[in-house]
Amino acid sequence: NVPLKHDSEYVIDGKIYGMPKAKIYRDDYNGPAVVGDYVTMVPHLAELDYKGNKEHEVRMDVFSQKVEVAPGVSYNAWTFGGSVPGPVLHVREGDRVVFKMKNRSTEEVVITKPFKGASPYFDQIAANQLQKHQPVVAPMPHSMDFHSGTVAADDKWATIAPGETIEFEWIANYAGTYMYHCGTSSVLMHTAMGQYGAVVVSPKEGYPTDKEVDQEYVIVQSEMYLEQMGDEYIYDHSAALARDPSHVVFNGHVSALSENPLKSNAGDRVRIHFLNAGPSGTSSFHVIGAIFDKVWAEGDPRNTWYGMQTVLLGASSSATVEFIVPEEGVYKLVDHEFADAERGAAGALYAGPR
Amino acid sequence: NVPLKHDSEYVIDGKIYGMPKAKIYRDDYNGPAVVGDYVTMVPHLAELDYKGNKEHEVRMDVFSQKVEVAPGVSYNAWTFGGSVPGPVLHVREGDRVVFKMKNRSTEEVVITKPFKGASPYFDQIAANQLQKHQPVVAPMPHSMDFHSGTVAADDKWATIAPGETIEFEWIANYAGTYMYHCGTSSVLMHTAMGQYGAVVVSPKEGYPTDKEVDQEYVIVQSEMYLEQMGDEYIYDHSAALARDPSHVVFNGHVSALSENPLKSNAGDRVRIHFLNAGPSGTSSFHVIGAIFDKVWAEGDPRNTWYGMQTVLLGASSSATVEFIVPEEGVYKLVDHEFADAERGAAGALYAGPR
Amino acid sequence: NVPLKHDSEYVIDGKIYGMPKAKIYRDDYNGPAVVGDYVTMVPHLAELDYKGNKEHEVRMDVFSQKVEVAPGVSYNAWTFGGSVPGPVLHVREGDRVVFKMKNRSTEEVVITKPFKGASPYFDQIAANQLQKHQPVVAPMPHSMDFHSGTVAADDKWATIAPGETIEFEWIANYAGTYMYHCGTSSVLMHTAMGQYGAVVVSPKEGYPTDKEVDQEYVIVQSEMYLEQMGDEYIYDHSAALARDPSHVVFNGHVSALSENPLKSNAGDRVRIHFLNAGPSGTSSFHVIGAIFDKVWAEGDPRNTWYGMQTVLLGASSSATVEFIVPEEGVYKLVDHEFADAERGAAGALYAGPR
Ligand SMILES: [Cu+2]
Ligand SMILES: [Cu+2]
Ligand SMILES: [Cu+2]
Ligand SMILES: [Cu+2]
Ligand SMILES: [Cu+2]
Ligand SMILES: [Cu+2]
Ligand code: NA
Ligand code: NA
Ligand code: NA
Ligand code: NA
Ligand code: NA
Ligand code: NA
Ligand SMILES: [Zn+2]
Ligand SMILES: [Zn+2]
Ligand SMILES: [Zn+2]
Ligand SMILES: [Zn+2]
Ligand SMILES: [Zn+2]
Ligand SMILES: [Zn+2]
Ligand SMILES: [Zn+2]
Ligand SMILES: [Zn+2]
Ligand SMILES: [Zn+2]
Repeated sequence: NVPLKHDSEYVIDGKIYGMPKAKIYRDDYNGPAVVGDYVTMVPHLAELDYKGNKEHEVRMDVFSQKVEVAPGVSYNAWTFGGSVPGPVLHVREGDRVVFKMKNRSTEEVVITKPFKGASPYFDQIAANQLQKHQPVVAPMPHSMDFHSGTVAADDKWATIAPGETIEFEWIANYAGTYMYHCGTSSVLMHTAMGQYGAVVVSPKEGYPTDKEVDQEYVIVQSEMYLEQMGDEYIYDHSAALARDPSHVVFNGHVSALSENPLKSNAGDRVRIHFLNAGPSGTSSFHVIGAIFDKVWAEGDPRNTWYGMQTVLLGASSSATVEFIVPEEGVYKLVDHEFADAERGAAGALYAGPR
Repeated sequence: NVPLKHDSEYVIDGKIYGMPKAKIYRDDYNGPAVVGDYVTMVPHLAELDYKGNKEHEVRMDVFSQKVEVAPGVSYNAWTFGGSVPGPVLHVREGDRVVFKMKNRSTEEVVITKPFKGASPYFDQIAANQLQKHQPVVAPMPHSMDFHSGTVAADDKWATIAPGETIEFEWIANYAGTYMYHCGTSSVLMHTAMGQYGAVVVSPKEGYPTDKEVDQEYVIVQSEMYLEQMGDEYIYDHSAALARDPSHVVFNGHVSALSENPLKSNAGDRVRIHFLNAGPSGTSSFHVIGAIFDKVWAEGDPRNTWYGMQTVLLGASSSATVEFIVPEEGVYKLVDHEFADAERGAAGALYAGPR
Repeated sequence: NVPLKHDSEYVIDGKIYGMPKAKIYRDDYNGPAVVGDYVTMVPHLAELDYKGNKEHEVRMDVFSQKVEVAPGVSYNAWTFGGSVPGPVLHVREGDRVVFKMKNRSTEEVVITKPFKGASPYFDQIAANQLQKHQPVVAPMPHSMDFHSGTVAADDKWATIAPGETIEFEWIANYAGTYMYHCGTSSVLMHTAMGQYGAVVVSPKEGYPTDKEVDQEYVIVQSEMYLEQMGDEYIYDHSAALARDPSHVVFNGHVSALSENPLKSNAGDRVRIHFLNAGPSGTSSFHVIGAIFDKVWAEGDPRNTWYGMQTVLLGASSSATVEFIVPEEGVYKLVDHEFADAERGAAGALYAGPR
């Protein structure tokens, strides 16, 4: 295990609690907005190429980008790291994360240039220009709430003003796939504006099927509440309160997983870490033509379900699902709540021959 | 087990994959629209009077019927086999299904005559005239997606034109209660129009309580989205998109399970295979006066829950529930989401003396 | 175990069924509206200071109170025992409850006086004047449906007229946290008007963590459907049918758990029995800054989930959750369906130093 590091820390049932106070300060940092060796863009997950536990230095700055959600539909999103959803962080149960976030909402931050090549995240976002990022300025207080962290929320998830940086640590005490999001009021608005993503905490001893898995992907479902305003689209708070989404999307765009389908081959075992980020709706995740051989509720290997056609997930719930790809062909992925599938909650997996 | 049958087939973890390509053709078949020895009408389930595995020849033709949903409320449904929901297919884990479906949407198909006596399904539909079937013509492409099958969806679940027949095979690789439905776009519309039903795949080794069960029933919940148009009712796509159902029903009619209540006796163990067909809503299934002694999520005997007052099911999720009937009397069955119970999602079980 | 008591009773799988018929009569009772040694007000739970099983004499009379739901928003609630939600009953698996309820909807019943000191419930309601109870008269038939009881619903849950008393018995055959509510038609209306609460049936052998738990609380979530009518608020049945709540609340008031937060200390193990009373919506219960170490679905110790960020509960489903309080600080509790959190489904837990 990563050892205790600060005087304030203590252990209960093998888990570390009592992180030191968060630091909030101002600096002139203007480097890469996303830092971390195990940080990728959905649907990708970085491989954990180390044994045991590790301390991760991670940065996800907040800034605004105009992003596309559907053909012809873009809005000025509030983002972690420039994309909606934000970057995927992969760690192992027991790892320590030293996290930094600068609120750069007053700056025009360019996400795809000049950082190409700097990390898997930048490579992947450069390779997938579906969201068509354009920097915009939208000064606003923001915060970061990692569901994967067990800390005092009033301290670590504190709201910071534009220009401020917050720095805190958390331990990945529990395996699973977790939501992170901005926790600044109105949380409904801040999440709906684009501030959410996934942390995958792989179990210390792995999942029992680790050696059989051929592909491993991450999908984040979310609702968009946009209304047209002249040529533009803006967030519609009344629609968000009424649970009446304009779009429901996998990985931030109605076409994210159909323009760029997941890939596999007949006979493969595919694992998907599926997070329903909400902000309000449920998801009934289903793969057309397949049955989930295993489902780990919330991604914990102790929560095993078998042989499921569909898995129901509440807002900010996740499941790690696995299925055998039966044959060469095309398998659509849907929220089987068809009112949401019609709004865009659909994608595809293409399977080559065995 | 049913052995491998085609060169394309292979086994992974004891399950058979790699079914041969679907065949689509035209013929002049105009025989019984539903064929199958283990095919019944809800709430009935055929007894599996064979040992081990079996190959089933099953037909469920598509055609339209005007059906009643509530007193005075009928609409021109698109159906599998003439009823809403469609027939219940019962097989055993490991069985092979050779399935045929003719799209007879251009024909007036009479469901209750002259096929009375031809199979349990026809007997049961003739005995229960609540839906008051009347043949109508509604030419339309359709398809069949069995959640119980693990196959390439673009091949087996292909859409066929009026007059065409599709033929394909699938193996019941996983035990459980599964939805089937038309997968032709708009799936929201095709399912809401009436094209859904249940397949019960009994576990190879059974459920641990098989010997104690006194009655076994099937309930399919679904939402109807109908609007009045003069004297008629028609499907309301806006209401379906808005998740604003006009009716929510058990077994296709607001009175299906109150006009014809389930039957049992005090002290009996009752098993219900409950499927929430959606197309979009959740169901919180509850039996008033009883507690579910066992709940098998998705009908898989490995997914056991105990002592539940209510089971929450997403769209296209199922559960196999069992309860002891405490006393002689009347037990209402409800979706405990009372906004839906008020729309009709209610029924009853009548218990005689011990 | 509490032995069989009436000739009609019999045992199946160690559980007692076959309770005698309910009695309905008129008397001139005008004593305390709530009776029971193990009856408290949310979020409190009485300690079971006895070994083995016990017979409980419990009364919860029905009468109306004007209660506050949010600052400036009061309505004439229909109540069990004067509060919304009603009193919490705590028993042990196997206990017998002899229950009496008088329909006093024609009377002005004073809840906080003169019964102060009479039982934990009265002490607690007197100490927490957030709902600002004022007696009102609202003659109406009512009934009581305990989800914790296994009985003939048409007999025990029978509707009684104003002035009548109903008396029946039930056995707590199954451990777990259960909803009770008025089952009189329209059930949507009677529950939305305020007639619901929780029964906690502690497992015979306890939960495996009983010795580690430092605090034990009860939270009941529910939706309110109120519309303004001049200076008053009244129940809005159209909004209830449309699932468009005006308020979503923990323990009956938008500020119940923020004005009077739950209390603990860093390092504590906190247990919450969480019931989603609906009447229609789901809840995605989450504690900001914590992860649920254990979740027992429906409160049954055989239904264990581990390491969950959020637990999804349908209408009339419950979970018993436990978490370690990581540090001194403030932890907000929310329905992570943020459209509902914005309507009031939020509270807090304050943690002192370790
Ligand atoms: Cu924010
Ligand atoms: Cu959160
Ligand atoms: Cu169709
Ligand atoms: Cu489907
Ligand atoms: Cu109920
Ligand atoms: Cu009532
Ligand atoms: Na959904
Ligand atoms: Na299954
Ligand atoms: Na429902
Ligand atoms: Na229970
Ligand atoms: Na909710
Ligand atoms: Na977890
Ligand atoms: Zn890629
Ligand atoms: Zn924010
Ligand atoms: Zn499917
Ligand atoms: Zn029958
Ligand atoms: Zn169709
Ligand atoms: Zn009940
Ligand atoms: Zn108190
Ligand atoms: Zn009532
Ligand atoms: Zn959180």
